[in-house]
Amino acid sequence: MGSTLLSELATEILVPVCAVVGIIFSLVQWFIVSRVRLTHERPPSSNSDKKNGFNDYLIEEEEGINDQSVVAKCADIQSAISEGATSFLFTEYQYVGVFMIAFAILIFVFLGSVEGFSTKGQACTYDQQKMCKPALATAAFSTVSFLLGAITSVLSGFLGMKIATYANARTTLEARKSVGKAFIVAFRSGAVMGFLLAANGLLVLFIAINLFKLYYGDDWEGLFEAITGYGLGGSSMALFGRVGGGIYTKAADVGADLVGKVERNIPEDDPRNPAVIADNVGDNVGDIAGMGSDLFGSYAESSCAALVVASISSFGINHEFTSMLYPLLISSIGILVCLITTLFATDFFEVKAVKEIEPSLKKQLIISTVLMTVGIAIVSWIGLPSSFTIYNFGAQKVVKNWQLFLCVAVGLWAGLIIGFVTEYYTSNAYSPVQDVADSCRTGAATNVIFGLALGYKSVIIPIFAIAVSIFVSFSFAAMYGIAVAALGMLSTIATGLAIDAYGPISDNAGGIAEMAGMSHRIRERTDALDAAGNTTAAIGKGFAIGSAALVSLALFGAFVSRAGITTVDVLTPKVFIGLIVGAMLPYWFSAMTMKSVGSAALKMVEEVRRQFNTIPGLMEGTTKPDYATCVKISTDASIKEMIPPGALVMLTPLIVGIFFGVETLSGVLAGSLVSGVQIAISASNTGGAWDNAKKYIEAGASEHARTLGPKGSEPHKAAVIGDTIGDPLKDTSGPSLNILIKLMAVESLVFAPFFATHGGLLFKIF
Amino acid sequence: MGSTLLSELATEILVPVCAVVGIIFSLVQWFIVSRVRLTHERPPSSNSDKKNGFNDYLIEEEEGINDQSVVAKCADIQSAISEGATSFLFTEYQYVGVFMIAFAILIFVFLGSVEGFSTKGQACTYDQQKMCKPALATAAFSTVSFLLGAITSVLSGFLGMKIATYANARTTLEARKSVGKAFIVAFRSGAVMGFLLAANGLLVLFIAINLFKLYYGDDWEGLFEAITGYGLGGSSMALFGRVGGGIYTKAADVGADLVGKVERNIPEDDPRNPAVIADNVGDNVGDIAGMGSDLFGSYAESSCAALVVASISSFGINHEFTSMLYPLLISSIGILVCLITTLFATDFFEVKAVKEIEPSLKKQLIISTVLMTVGIAIVSWIGLPSSFTIYNFGAQKVVKNWQLFLCVAVGLWAGLIIGFVTEYYTSNAYSPVQDVADSCRTGAATNVIFGLALGYKSVIIPIFAIAVSIFVSFSFAAMYGIAVAALGMLSTIATGLAIDAYGPISDNAGGIAEMAGMSHRIRERTDALDAAGNTTAAIGKGFAIGSAALVSLALFGAFVSRAGITTVDVLTPKVFIGLIVGAMLPYWFSAMTMKSVGSAALKMVEEVRRQFNTIPGLMEGTTKPDYATCVKISTDASIKEMIPPGALVMLTPLIVGIFFGVETLSGVLAGSLVSGVQIAISASNTGGAWDNAKKYIEAGASEHARTLGPKGSEPHKAAVIGDTIGDPLKDTSGPSLNILIKLMAVESLVFAPFFATHGGLLFKIF
Repeated sequence: MGSTLLSELATEILVPVCAVVGIIFSLVQWFIVSRVRLTHERPPSSNSDKKNGFNDYLIEEEEGINDQSVVAKCADIQSAISEGATSFLFTEYQYVGVFMIAFAILIFVFLGSVEGFSTKGQACTYDQQKMCKPALATAAFSTVSFLLGAITSVLSGFLGMKIATYANARTTLEARKSVGKAFIVAFRSGAVMGFLLAANGLLVLFIAINLFKLYYGDDWEGLFEAITGYGLGGSSMALFGRVGGGIYTKAADVGADLVGKVERNIPEDDPRNPAVIADNVGDNVGDIAGMGSDLFGSYAESSCAALVVASISSFGINHEFTSMLYPLLISSIGILVCLITTLFATDFFEVKAVKEIEPSLKKQLIISTVLMTVGIAIVSWIGLPSSFTIYNFGAQKVVKNWQLFLCVAVGLWAGLIIGFVTEYYTSNAYSPVQDVADSCRTGAATNVIFGLALGYKSVIIPIFAIAVSIFVSFSFAAMYGIAVAALGMLSTIATGLAIDAYGPISDNAGGIAEMAGMSHRIRERTDALDAAGNTTAAIGKGFAIGSAALVSLALFGAFVSRAGITTVDVLTPKVFIGLIVGAMLPYWFSAMTMKSVGSAALKMVEEVRRQFNTIPGLMEGTTKPDYATCVKISTDASIKEMIPPGALVMLTPLIVGIFFGVETLSGVLAGSLVSGVQIAISASNTGGAWDNAKKYIEAGASEHARTLGPKGSEPHKAAVIGDTIGDPLKDTSGPSLNILIKLMAVESLVFAPFFATHGGLLFKIF
Repeated sequence: MGSTLLSELATEILVPVCAVVGIIFSLVQWFIVSRVRLTHERPPSSNSDKKNGFNDYLIEEEEGINDQSVVAKCADIQSAISEGATSFLFTEYQYVGVFMIAFAILIFVFLGSVEGFSTKGQACTYDQQKMCKPALATAAFSTVSFLLGAITSVLSGFLGMKIATYANARTTLEARKSVGKAFIVAFRSGAVMGFLLAANGLLVLFIAINLFKLYYGDDWEGLFEAITGYGLGGSSMALFGRVGGGIYTKAADVGADLVGKVERNIPEDDPRNPAVIADNVGDNVGDIAGMGSDLFGSYAESSCAALVVASISSFGINHEFTSMLYPLLISSIGILVCLITTLFATDFFEVKAVKEIEPSLKKQLIISTVLMTVGIAIVSWIGLPSSFTIYNFGAQKVVKNWQLFLCVAVGLWAGLIIGFVTEYYTSNAYSPVQDVADSCRTGAATNVIFGLALGYKSVIIPIFAIAVSIFVSFSFAAMYGIAVAALGMLSTIATGLAIDAYGPISDNAGGIAEMAGMSHRIRERTDALDAAGNTTAAIGKGFAIGSAALVSLALFGAFVSRAGITTVDVLTPKVFIGLIVGAMLPYWFSAMTMKSVGSAALKMVEEVRRQFNTIPGLMEGTTKPDYATCVKISTDASIKEMIPPGALVMLTPLIVGIFFGVETLSGVLAGSLVSGVQIAISASNTGGAWDNAKKYIEAGASEHARTLGPKGSEPHKAAVIGDTIGDPLKDTSGPSLNILIKLMAVESLVFAPFFATHGGLLFKIF
C-alpha cells in the first residue's frame, strides 16, 4: 500500500477543470456550427447571402445554392421539427416527472425503513469498530442523488435534441456545397452533444460527491451508497426516454413508409406525406434524446458501481481520496483525449468524398482508443498507489496498479472490437449486408431470414470480447475490475456520442432536403451521410450494449456484496428459477415494445391513408397535409405505451426482492443480463443491416447493387419491407434492452439493504 | 426407509409387458389404417373398388370418389414421396453413421483414459468401502449404450417416416368421404408412431439395463453411468435428424413457395411446381423422422438422468430394484394411459365437422393428463418406499413418496399448461393469431413485427410453468425431482407424438390431394386438418422444449455431481464467462441453420425458376417437371449444411471441458439452457402463428377473415411472406435448439469423469 503521485488537492482541481474544458470545447463547436446561417429572415438582396453564412467564398456553384426560398423552407421545416420535438419532450417529462417523484418517495420510505426510520448512527457494515451515518440519512441522500441523476439525464437528452434540431437544416444547406462540408457540420454538432453530456455528467457527479461529503465526513461507505441513486435516476429517466422516444420515432417512421413508400410510391421524407414531420421529430426524440439519456445512464452507473465497490476497499477504508476518485479521473482524461480525437476529424483531415466518410469515422474510434490507452496508463500511474486491496465478496484482494490499468484497457479495447464487428455486419461495404441485399432477389421472406441470421451471427465476437474483458478484469480486481472495464469502454464516450449523434442529424438533413424540394444530387449526398450514420448508430448501440453488460455485472456484484450474500449458486432452486425467469424478461419487454410500435404504426397508417384519400390535392402537392394529427398520434401512443414496459422493468426487482428475496433476485439479474445482451446486439445489427441493404440497392454504387435496383424494383421493395421490420428492432426494443439490464441491476443495488432486511416474504411465510 | 409394494419380479414383468402392449396396440392401429386401400393395381371393374377400401358402403357420394385414376395418382405420388424420404434418410444415416462411429471411439478413448486404461477395479466414488468396476468397463459399456441409443433413435425416426408416408395418401382418399374419416386415419397413423416409439424406447432401455447388470452385478453406480450413453446416442442422432431434416424440408418448402405461390401464382403443392415432391418428402424427413428422434432423445435422456441420480441415492446404495426402475415404471403406465386416451379419439367419440378437430385434439391432452395423474399416484404408491434418500450435491436428502408423486405431477401439468398456452398463441381460433392476420392489412412488415412480438410474448407463461416445476421438484427431491418432473411431462409421449405426427401427415395429404388434381372441397378439408396440425405441431414443440429444459437441468445436475463440484457460483469469472457464452450459443446455432435454409432455398428457387423458364409446357401442365433435381438440391444442401451446426453442438462441451474445465462448462450449460429455451419457444410459436394467420385468411371462415382474403389479395400475399419466414424458425432452428441444450448437457455428463480428471488445461497452464 502506498500513497498516490497525484495529491488530493490536484484531484479536486483536475476533475472539474477537465469537465469545464469539455463544456467550453462543446460551446466552441456550437459556435462554429452556428456560423452556417439560416438567413431566411433577411432580405434576399443582402450581401452576406452570397457567402451564405461561411466567411469564405463558395468554391462550387450549384443549382439553388443562392436560392433564398430554399433556405427559408429549410428554416421553416427545422423550426417545425424543433417545436414538435420540444413539445413532445415536455409532455414526456411531465408524465415521467410524476412517476419519478413517486419513485423518489418509494426510495426514501423503503430505505428509511431498513433501520425503522431511526435517526441514530449505526456500526458500519464493513468496519464494525466505526460508527456510520443512520440508514435514514442514506435514504434521504439516495433520494436526492436519484433526483439529481434524473435531472441530469433529462438535461442530457434535451440539450442533445436542441443541438440536433439546430444542426439538421444547417447540414442540409452545407450539403449543397459539398459532402465534406455537410459531414463536418453534422459531426461537429454530434461533438457538441458528446462533450456536453460527458462533461456535464462528470461535473454533476463530482459536485454531488463533494457536497455529500460535507455531511458524511469520514463515512465513505454511506456516502457512496447514497451516490448510487445518481445512477438509478439517470437510468430510470433513460428507460422512459428510450422506450417513449423509440415508440414515437418508429410509429411515425413505419407508418410514413408503409403508406408513402409502399402504397403511394412517393419518396422517403416527401413533404406530401402527412407523417413526415412526426418521422423527423422522432429521430430527435428517440435516437438523439433517448440515446443521450441512455449513455449518460451507463456512464453514471459504471461510475457509481466502481465508487461503491471502492468505498469498501482500501481506498475507502484508508480514505485515499485521489484513488477513490480514480473512476472520475479516467472520465476526465477521456474528455481531453476525445477533444484531441475530434480535431482529427474536424481540423487535421478533411473529408472530400462519400467513400471517405466511413473511414474517417472509423479513424475516430481507433485514434481515441489508442490515445486513451496512454491516458489510462498515466492516470493509473499517478492516481493509484502501486498496490492496494479491493473488496471481493467477503475478502480483500491485493491488486497492483498495472493490473487495474489492464482492467480499464481491456474494456476500452473490447469496445473497439465490438465497434469494428458491428461495422462489419452493418455497413454495406462488406459482404454480410451485401448478401442480405442479394437475398432480396427472391423477395422479402429471404431478406428477413438472411437478416435475422446476420443479427444472430453478429453476436458471436462481441460476446467473446465481453467474456474476455470480464475474465481478465474479474481475475485481476474482482467486481471493481469489471466496473472500471465498463468505464474504460465508456471513457471515450464523447467521441462515441459524437459519431452516434451524427447519424440522426444526417438522417434529418436528408429529410429536410427532400421536404424543401432540393435536387436529387443533394439528397444523394445526405443519403451517403445517412448510410454511414446507420453504421455508426449500430456501433454506438454496440458500445452501449457492451458497456451495459459490464456495468450490470459490476452493479450485480455490488448488489450481492451489499445484500450480504457470498455465493450465487445456480444449483439452488431459488437462484435457478430467477435465472430462467430473468432470461425471459427481455422477451417479454421486447414483445411489449414491438407490439406498441406495431399498433401505433397501424394507427398512423390509417391516418395517413385517410389524409391521402380525403384531402384533395394532397398527392398533387397543391395542398398541405395535416402534420399535427400525425404528431399527436405518435405522442399519444408513445406516452401511453411506454408505461407497461417501463413498469415491467421498474417493478420486477421490487417484486422479486420483496417476495422472493435476494438470491432469486440475483438469478433474475444474471439471467436477464446474459439473455438480454444477445437480443439487444442481434436486434440492433439486424435492423442496421436491413436499413443499409436497402440503401445499398438505392445507391447502386456497384455492378452488383445495380442488378438489384433501381428504387421501385422488386428486390428494392423487398428491401424496404426488411428495413421497416428492422425499425422497431434497432430503434425501440434493441436499444431499450440494455437499459433493462442496467436498470434492474442498479435498482437492486439501491434497494439491497431493504431487500436484505425485509425481502423474501414468500419464503419466510412458507 | 422401507420396501416397495411391487416386488422386483413384478417390476421385471410389468415393464416389458407394458412395452409389448404398446407395440401390439400400434400394430393394431397400423392394421386399421391399412384397410384403406390404395387399389390402383386392380382393374377398375373389381367389386371391392365400389367400397373403396373400407368394408362399409360410402355414406356420401362425391365427385371422383370412385374414380380409379385419382386413386392410382395418389398411390403414385405416395410412392414417390416414400422413395424420396427413404433414399434421403439412408444417405443421411450413412454420413451420420461415420460420425457416430468416430464419436463412439472418442467416448471409449476419453473415458478409458480416466484411469489410464487400467483393467483393475477401483473404490466406488460414493461408497469408498466398496469396489466398483474399472473405468475401462464403463468406457466400453458407455460406448455400447451410445450406439444402442443412436440405433434406437434411427429406428424411431425411420419407422415414423414409413408410417407417415404410408398414411398420407390414405388420409387424402378418406377426405373424399368426410373430414372425420380423414382425421381418424391421420390420427391413427400418428398413434402408430407414438406408441411404437414410446414402447420401443422403453423396451430397449429395459433390456440394456438387464444385460448390463449381468456384468456389473452390484455396482449400480457404474451400471447407470454407462447407461447414460443411451441418452447421448439418442440425442446425437436426433440432432442430425432435426437439423438435416429441418434444412431439407424448409429449403424445399421455401423454394417451392417463393416461385410457385409468389411469382407464378399457382397454388401450394401444385404438381407443376418442380419442388413439390421435395417439399412433401421434407415433411416426412423433418417433421416426422426428425421429431421422432428428438422426442425419443428427450425420453431417453430424462430416464438416464433420473437413473444416474437414483443410482447414487438410497435406491442404488440399498439395491432397491423396483424403486430404481421408478422412471421406467412411469413410462410403462404412461403407455397404458395413452392407450386408453387414444380410444377416446378413435372409438368413443367421432369427429364430424372441421370445428371439432381442435377440441378433439385438446381433449386428448386433457384426458391423458388427468388419467396419468392417477397413474403416477399408483406407481408412486406401489413402486416407492414411503421414505427414501436422494443424493443432493454431496448430501443425502430424505424424500417421501408423495413428494416424488408431486414432482412427477407438476411436470405433467406444466406440460399441459405449456400445451394450452401454445395452442392459444398459434391457433387461429383465438385473438393473437387473428391480430397477426389483421396486421397483414398494412403489409408484410407489420405482419412480421406482430408475429415476432407474439412469439416473444408466448414465452412468458411457459417459462413461469417451467420455473414453478423446477422450484417444486427441486425443493422436494433435488435433481432427481427435476428428472422425474421431465419424465412426467414426457409420460404421455405416445399421445403427444400421435397428435404431433398427425400434423405433417395431414399436410402431406393436402399436398397429395392437390397433386392428384382433386376438387377444391377435398383440399379445403385437408387444409382444415392441416391448420389444426400446425397448432398441434406447435404444442408438440412446446412439450419438447419444456421437457428439454427440465431434462437438461437434471442432466446438468447429474453432471455437476459426477464432476465433483458442489456449487456453480455465478460470481466467479470462470462460471460467468461460461454463462454468457453459453447464452450466445443458441444464437450462433440459429444463425447457422437459418442461413443454411436461406442459401439452400435460394438454390432451389433458381432451379425451380430455371425449370419454369426452360421446360416448355410446364406451366400449362402438359409436361412433367424434373422433380429429381429438386430432391437432389435439398438432399445435398442438408447433408452439407447439417455438419457445422452439428459440430458446434457436439464440440463445444468437449472444447470447453478440456480447455476451461468443469466450472466454465457448468456456466455454458446453464447459459445455453436459460437462453435457448426462450428462443426455441418464441421461434416455434412465431412460425406456427404466421402459418395459421395465412390459413385463417385463406379459409375465410369469419367476417373478419373474409375482409382480409381471398387468396391472392394483398393481405394474403403479406401473410404468405410471414409464413415463409416462419418456416425455418419453426421447423429448423427452433426445434433443433432443444436438442442443443439437452445434448450439450448429456454429453457433459458422459464425459464428466474425463473432464474432472484431465480438463481445464488452459487454467492449469496459466
